[in-house]
Formats: sequence, structure tokens, C-alpha cells
Amino acid sequence: MSLYVEDLEPGMSWRTASATLSADDIVDFATQWDPQPFHIDRTAGEASFFGGLVASGLHTFVLTFRLYNDLGLFRDTAVAGVGVENMRWLRPVKEGTTLRASATVHAVEPSRRPGLGRVTMRLQSFDEEDVRLFTFDLTILLKRRPAEEAAAPT
Amino acid sequence: MSLYVEDLEPGMSWRTASATLSADDIVDFATQWDPQPFHIDRTAGEASFFGGLVASGLHTFVLTFRLYNDLGLFRDTAVAGVGVENMRWLRPVKEGTTLRASATVHAVEPSRRPGLGRVTMRLQSFDEEDVRLFTFDLTILLKRRPAEEAAAPT
Repeated sequence: MSLYVEDLEPGMSWRTASATLSADDIVDFATQWDPQPFHIDRTAGEASFFGGLVASGLHTFVLTFRLYNDLGLFRDTAVAGVGVENMRWLRPVKEGTTLRASATVHAVEPSRRPGLGRVTMRLQSFDEEDVRLFTFDLTILLKRRPAEEAAAPT
Repeated sequence: MSLYVEDLEPGMSWRTASATLSADDIVDFATQWDPQPFHIDRTAGEASFFGGLVASGLHTFVLTFRLYNDLGLFRDTAVAGVGVENMRWLRPVKEGTTLRASATVHAVEPSRRPGLGRVTMRLQSFDEEDVRLFTFDLTILLKRRPAEEAAAPT
């Protein structure tokens, strides 16, 4: 399955697979990209605003994106990323959380580039009890369906 | 150096160190988080919209954040991330690009949480020729400077 601009309407929605974030996952990612104490040290996490070891918001973002990307909706039709709006870390993602995501078509707009459209997907991730943890709106350039060749004259 | 809300005014700006993205860096990151063909295969990249192997936009984001975080501006005063607006991938980040970033105070606002403020930093990254590649606005909760204890009566 690889969807074109013409296949999409606002409100269409998909659910992703899930992924569990272990303490090691959280610490390994944060050590590389976001080594703030509450992401790399449990004791520091417990003493922080969050009251425990919590995933970097960058980690939540890339993991939510990966779950979405694994749906393969636009495997052969995604051309480029444009940008992101409305990214919100709503609740801390603590160690052991099993996260899954939803991907919903939020807007379908024309592009000034021929053959392409601009599609905004609202991506949200949830914990095991369906509490929403994180949300963002991703706009990408997506291929339009190629015009059918005119039927050959018979 | 660790700055509090009271230390910040819109327009204050800092430049980060630089980091070079090799083809291996690009492919390794994308294999884990964003395995789209133009991020993991040079031939696919050359045939794509981008005309070459390009870093995942997620990679540009986390690397720009890491360069900003390494400034240590808010090492002991950053409390939590709130969200991101206006993220734009303006130009592709090709293999071999040396990227550096700027961090500018964009807004300083009150928080409903006592002792904290909301600070929005505009983070932008640039290539070797100072061409802007990427931008986003990151809002965080930051500590206010603790009130001085009243001087003891003499």
C-alpha cells in the first residue's frame, strides 16, 4: 500500500504497532542526543519535576515517527518533509511505557510543485491505558497519482 | 553558566559548535529511526527529489538540539519541554555537511506554575557557507531565580 494525494481525506486514521521503552533505551538515546540529568540518571529523574527517569522528548518524537513510518502508508509516494507544528509533550514518558501511535489525515492542500501535494498528518502517541502523551502535526510533500495514459485509439 | 528566566531578553543569541554529518552517520541514524530509501541508500538518494543521500529531518532536529544543549545555557535551570512550533526543513542536509546552529531568545512568558517561566528559543542550523538549512521554535519551562533570603537583622 502506498497512498497518493488523491487517496486521502481529512479524518482518515490508522493505528500503529507498539513499542516499549526500557530504562536502557531511554538512557542510551539521551546519552547521545539529550544528556540532561533526568534522562540519563534515575536518581536525578526521581529528584526532578518528573519524579522518575523519563524519555527525552526527542526520543518520544523519533519513536512516534518510526511507528508511523512503519505503517508504510507513503512508502513510495513520500517525497520530502516540509515541517512540523503543534508539537506538545503532554505527559512524561516514564521507563517501561508501552507507546503506540495514531496517524490521522489533518489537511490535504495543493503544492506549487507540479505532481505533488502537501499533506498534514496529525501524529499522536498513547500509553497502555490510552492516555495521550504526545502530539504533533507533520507536513510532507506527497506524490499525486500519475495521469493515466490516454487509451490508445482502437 | 546556567541562566534563569530573569536573565533572558528576546534577541539574546548564541552560536554553537559545529558537527559534520558523514554518509555513515546519516545511514546509521536513518536505519534506526527513518529508513526511507533516500536516507539509507546513496543510489536511491541520487534518484530522489534531493539528488543525493540526505539526512533524515529527524536527524537534523536531534543534532541541532544537541549542539544547542551543549551550550549549557540552562544546564541546571531547564525543567521540562513544552513543545515546538514552526519547524521547517528549508534545504536538504547532504552527506559531508558541517552544521552549526544559533539559539536566540524568541519569547519569555509567565507560567502558571510557581517558580517557573516559559521560554521560547528559536534554534536554527546553517551549513559551512552560512546558508540556513533548518529552523524551529522550542518552548521550555525554565526556573525563575530563587528569591534572596531577607538580610538577617543586625
